[in-house]
Amino acid sequence: MRKLKDIRPIKLKERNLLVLNQLKLPLEEEWIELSNYNQVAEAIKSMIIRGAPLIGIVGAYGFAIGINEFSTVEPEVLKQKSKQIYETLKNTRPTAVNLFWALDRMLSKFNSLIKKGIYGNELIEELFKEANRIDLEDYHANKSIGGYGEVLIRDNWKILTHCNTGALATSGWGTALGVIRSAYQNGKDLFVYVDETRPYLQGSRLTAWELLQEGIPHKIIVDSAAGFLMKKGEINAVIVGADRITARGDVANKIGTYSLSVLAKKHNIPFYVAAPTSSFDLTIEKGEDIVIEIRDENEVKTCGGCIVAPEKSEALNLSFDITPAENISAIITEKGLITEISKEKILKFFNKN
Amino acid sequence: MRKLKDIRPIKLKERNLLVLNQLKLPLEEEWIELSNYNQVAEAIKSMIIRGAPLIGIVGAYGFAIGINEFSTVEPEVLKQKSKQIYETLKNTRPTAVNLFWALDRMLSKFNSLIKKGIYGNELIEELFKEANRIDLEDYHANKSIGGYGEVLIRDNWKILTHCNTGALATSGWGTALGVIRSAYQNGKDLFVYVDETRPYLQGSRLTAWELLQEGIPHKIIVDSAAGFLMKKGEINAVIVGADRITARGDVANKIGTYSLSVLAKKHNIPFYVAAPTSSFDLTIEKGEDIVIEIRDENEVKTCGGCIVAPEKSEALNLSFDITPAENISAIITEKGLITEISKEKILKFFNKN
Repeated sequence: MRKLKDIRPIKLKERNLLVLNQLKLPLEEEWIELSNYNQVAEAIKSMIIRGAPLIGIVGAYGFAIGINEFSTVEPEVLKQKSKQIYETLKNTRPTAVNLFWALDRMLSKFNSLIKKGIYGNELIEELFKEANRIDLEDYHANKSIGGYGEVLIRDNWKILTHCNTGALATSGWGTALGVIRSAYQNGKDLFVYVDETRPYLQGSRLTAWELLQEGIPHKIIVDSAAGFLMKKGEINAVIVGADRITARGDVANKIGTYSLSVLAKKHNIPFYVAAPTSSFDLTIEKGEDIVIEIRDENEVKTCGGCIVAPEKSEALNLSFDITPAENISAIITEKGLITEISKEKILKFFNKN
Repeated sequence: MRKLKDIRPIKLKERNLLVLNQLKLPLEEEWIELSNYNQVAEAIKSMIIRGAPLIGIVGAYGFAIGINEFSTVEPEVLKQKSKQIYETLKNTRPTAVNLFWALDRMLSKFNSLIKKGIYGNELIEELFKEANRIDLEDYHANKSIGGYGEVLIRDNWKILTHCNTGALATSGWGTALGVIRSAYQNGKDLFVYVDETRPYLQGSRLTAWELLQEGIPHKIIVDSAAGFLMKKGEINAVIVGADRITARGDVANKIGTYSLSVLAKKHNIPFYVAAPTSSFDLTIEKGEDIVIEIRDENEVKTCGGCIVAPEKSEALNLSFDITPAENISAIITEKGLITEISKEKILKFFNKN
């Protein structure tokens, strides 16, 4: 069993949140201190922190930080403020469901504490504890995803991954990259092809940085090279994360995931999605009904800070796409695998777990 | 009929070649003067100029410039020098066939002139004339490609293109982008989705710049977004160029072309290749036999000059890929269209033309 590092993208400093600035990685490891909920919202919006599970965790801490800002106001005013904090944090990113899930959990915890007459310091303590539980649950879920997922991975496989789904996208360890970590930890020799993942370069900047820390062999490729490598027999499996999974198993994930799923199917390569059960949104049936975030065109017109397009040309920055369930070999969750994906299978899986 | 600009990427200044520095576009329009064949070779290698047809044209001028450097030496020495110039220029880029074709033509012209006892100034004049013929033939070929290709394009279509196949990749007008130019010139309203084309960003830097000059509506997208736009019904046709086409119609072209061809086929979208007949290499049967250039990993680890990957991570920079004939709806040449592509069809086409 190999020994791996324990990379964590956030830490508490009393009642402030320290976050590793992912805009500056891998060139600089800068920690930013967030001391109010507007700063937290801004950090999510600007992608100082990103990754569906981590957005949820940071949103939860942001809610606790926000309530702390108003801890001395009247209960009725605080209840209004709680809604304002909830809405501000919720409106930062539209696609990932983990944020909504975590904020709903925090708001309902808040309401139940208020109902019990708990205010002031005790209320704040309890809210930070709840955010910390969400944080820890994510960490343990990832280890469990790694355990279920790594049995799918064979020794000496070359694996393609897209975006960053590692420690930096979660509480730690990661989802899709967590599966790779677990397999590597268990002694399997792997080679990882890292899609650079334009426009934000989560692959070349963040996934490559994590793999370097762990000593896992890898090479960065441009996103458009994946298909040709599949054709050349260079890729044994594709593993990606998810921002939201519908009741029928359609997956919203980083732009480019859909193309990879089509290419993997064409070349008979298994295509795995690794995500915690908090990524499921059973209120939505089909992927088409998920709101796809369109981000600022300047993310496409620049790259790593450099200008790469004419000022007067427009760009379309679709940040996510939808992969239909039929292109997915298995969804790997902390509660087990879902294969031959269908609505019936998914509902049964959730009823059982 | 709309009036379009006449963009030209190179011009002669007496016996030197002025080239528009494509590394600096679109931020700066810098012209570089090349006065010896080693400078020409370096400009091709470093991609100051690029694009299969333009590489051929610049190679031809480079040969004339090289012979001019040694115009006063003994005939026997000059013959040795001609081979050295030929080899130096030939060894700049391995994938595109136009360079080899143009250099062979220049060397054979040189040998026939020498055989006729033509030396000195007259020899140089004749060689520059031959290079100029190659240049002009390319321009007229592109206009003809545009004419044959534009009938395939319908009014109001949204067209995806990859890399730069425009005026900047050729003598002028362009191949795949020339088809778009011709259709637009003939009054068809088009919208162009421009793949940014990592790592060198020929799409966002060069194609977008050309489309802006012509006033053709367009949006830049990251390469990985193409598949999802196809799925959403946003793309009516894909048009790309070619660096080399084999006897059975397999096409070597910019990395990412193969993935687009698979995605287009999956979504029943026509996939066109536009290239002059000088891009055909009938000595090669299958795409697998084409040498694929692997360029410096730093082109992937940087973007527009900015560092985007950890220093210690490696990158794989496959510059081209192979699209099999069966994924191509038609090859558009200056001598007409080739559809239902097969070796028989292609050999018949060349015997006839």
